[in-house]
Amino acid sequence: MSDEQHDELIQTLHECMTACNHCFDACLKEDDIKMMAECMRLDRECADVCNYLEQALLRNSPFITELAAVCVKICEACGNECKKHDHDHCQKCADSCFKCAEACKSIA
Amino acid sequence: MSDEQHDELIQTLHECMTACNHCFDACLKEDDIKMMAECMRLDRECADVCNYLEQALLRNSPFITELAAVCVKICEACGNECKKHDHDHCQKCADSCFKCAEACKSIA
Amino acid sequence: MSDEQHDELIQTLHECMTACNHCFDACLKEDDIKMMAECMRLDRECADVCNYLEQALLRNSPFITELAAVCVKICEACGNECKKHDHDHCQKCADSCFKCAEACKSIA
Amino acid sequence: MSDEQHDELIQTLHECMTACNHCFDACLKEDDIKMMAECMRLDRECADVCNYLEQALLRNSPFITELAAVCVKICEACGNECKKHDHDHCQKCADSCFKCAEACKSIA
Repeated sequence: MSDEQHDELIQTLHECMTACNHCFDACLKEDDIKMMAECMRLDRECADVCNYLEQALLRNSPFITELAAVCVKICEACGNECKKHDHDHCQKCADSCFKCAEACKSIA
Repeated sequence: MSDEQHDELIQTLHECMTACNHCFDACLKEDDIKMMAECMRLDRECADVCNYLEQALLRNSPFITELAAVCVKICEACGNECKKHDHDHCQKCADSCFKCAEACKSIA
Repeated sequence: MSDEQHDELIQTLHECMTACNHCFDACLKEDDIKMMAECMRLDRECADVCNYLEQALLRNSPFITELAAVCVKICEACGNECKKHDHDHCQKCADSCFKCAEACKSIA
Repeated sequence: MSDEQHDELIQTLHECMTACNHCFDACLKEDDIKMMAECMRLDRECADVCNYLEQALLRNSPFITELAAVCVKICEACGNECKKHDHDHCQKCADSCFKCAEACKSIA
């Protein structure tokens, strides 16, 4: 991975984590929260794993490849769930998740 | 803090974190999830801070006192919210939170 | 995974995380710290991933299998490094890591 | 806190966490690692607490003030330790820590 790729991946992970945490917070305030249960569960999972991988990149972990492979799966699952919901925060979160899944795939 | 106190605090934090994560997961499955929004938010906060303090204790962090003071506040907030709800997982979580708040107070 | 397996795995992960954090803290105090650099790096990695998987189990994450597979790799790497060093904390940490790797393998 | 302050604080926390993780990784590779023990311990503490506070801001946690107060203490301690060492990564980390401590003070 080049330095540029490294920095770009960190940026992408950070945007995804931000979108997931924002979506989680916004879902908690929605009237149709019952429909958002799976979305909230996956938002938390996805925010946590993106944050974990970002930290691992920053401390030069030897396990980036393995962690990125898990991150792909979780980002895709979260993106697929978010895409189902019309809320703006869900649609934006889905975009971030799919972008992040692609970025992680390239190093997994 | 004696070794015994140290081990007991780790155990108490771990039980609280477990109860909060279980309550979060159970709330996501409840029919009256709309009423549980604040409970879920605080469950996540409380699980995270208890886990953080537990890790800090295990790695012999120099900032235990300060972290314990924050943990008291979050445990009490989560306990007070959980206590409002009749679900068994909420009542159990409230008990764990108050017990954990007391334990953290003794070192804060 | 049965409830019993679930609880046992959480216990094993917790013991491994505890051993790794203790080993990290003890390495920082060793005179031959130069030789312990890789051990400290892996102790931190291993403590973090065990903690992550434990949290995921407690919140009923849908990604246990994938996370457990990563945990196996990191536990084995940390155990292999720790085994090289005569310090009591390293030998104990190696034992915990190998035990944890086995436990994770059974669900990965 | 205005939206602008919020975004700026997240950026500052992120830079500090990045500097601390980089300093930790670089210390592990230094020849005089024995002298860097306290620096590594505090780098890990500081990276973890900055990351924690950043996550808390992103998910709109009700405990920002209390967490920021702890973050001030840890950033200052890490900055003071790093400042003692001539390595470029230590000096840069010290700058980031002091900048972050100031930013956290303004909301604590």
